Amino acid sequence: MKFHYPNGKQYMETKSSSKKTKVKQVSYSNRGMTLEEDINETNQYYLVHKTAVIHKKPTPVQIVDVHYPTRSAAVIKEAYFKQPSTTDYNGVYKSRYIDFEAKETKNKTSFPLQNFHEHQIKHMESVFIQEGITFVLLRFSLSEEVFLLPFEALKIYWERMISGGRKSIRKEEIEEAGFRIPLGLHPRVDYLKIVHQLYF
Amino acid sequence: MKFHYPNGKQYMETKSSSKKTKVKQVSYSNRGMTLEEDINETNQYYLVHKTAVIHKKPTPVQIVDVHYPTRSAAVIKEAYFKQPSTTDYNGVYKSRYIDFEAKETKNKTSFPLQNFHEHQIKHMESVFIQEGITFVLLRFSLSEEVFLLPFEALKIYWERMISGGRKSIRKEEIEEAGFRIPLGLHPRVDYLKIVHQLYF
Repeated sequence: MKFHYPNGKQYMETKSSSKKTKVKQVSYSNRGMTLEEDINETNQYYLVHKTAVIHKKPTPVQIVDVHYPTRSAAVIKEAYFKQPSTTDYNGVYKSRYIDFEAKETKNKTSFPLQNFHEHQIKHMESVFIQEGITFVLLRFSLSEEVFLLPFEALKIYWERMISGGRKSIRKEEIEEAGFRIPLGLHPRVDYLKIVHQLYF
Repeated sequence: MKFHYPNGKQYMETKSSSKKTKVKQVSYSNRGMTLEEDINETNQYYLVHKTAVIHKKPTPVQIVDVHYPTRSAAVIKEAYFKQPSTTDYNGVYKSRYIDFEAKETKNKTSFPLQNFHEHQIKHMESVFIQEGITFVLLRFSLSEEVFLLPFEALKIYWERMISGGRKSIRKEEIEEAGFRIPLGLHPRVDYLKIVHQLYF
């Protein structure tokens, strides 16, 4: 925990700066980690280091039938996935409420808006009105880039779609309105660094 | 929504204040509503009135087997209940993070502490360190009384138990260290009134 890797690049000593040694940069690609796994690990890091308390909400399930084969154990025998009515992640950082959704795409040049549901947008709007900190984390899987896009910006592109415009956000728009998250080893996706700069 | 019933007592006009008419007070007992139902209704009221955005988290479930009888529908065929690692309710009120657990008892004179799990206490402690607003709502079902007990107070009784003391909180202790929640029709359990007085 004593080593910091700014910008997600591991520090590697080179003999001479003029001599261009082929130092292989540590790559975070092809690790097979989903954005969700990276965020969970990051939240665990924040929890252990008392930086923040942020959890992923459980998947909402409509339970229809439960069996009790023994007195202590209950087995759910029939259940269905429900559409979540909120975002996936929330918690507290320095007394403020944090609320976000995380999505990834394999597209290279734009982020499809159908990744979001209308009730999630509405939820984030309610949080925004309550002066909670709300945003989305967007990952371009192939290039492994992660951006924080504040809800205020997402809303503009969402409403552009509603009013008949394009159904995605151009990558340049995300680079312009969003903030690139530094990637690292511990934590992997240090989104609170950006949150701190933006909201504190 | 135009009528307000302070203290949960419906206003009833009496012909003369000197003449003691037998006005039957509106009773909230025996409504068959659980504390959870009351809180969900209250949170819905807060949401609609843009007072706060507070939701109950879904029950955490470990999914083992999912069938896909049709291409669109998924049926969970085997799953188990998991112990929640956090409290049940969280959200945002005036930019601050709110986090609480709600429990009820049929006891008349004390509140059993086995209603809480150690990981919930630890979670509330983490939230407290992050300066989130964290507490428990305790209902004595038979008398229909609901109290807000700040985490700081709960912690004292929890640690008394850990160090070999009594396994419950005396009702008088709750009346002393906690705050009685006004009960009403809309919202039913107006806990934010107390939160506002205590933390803002």
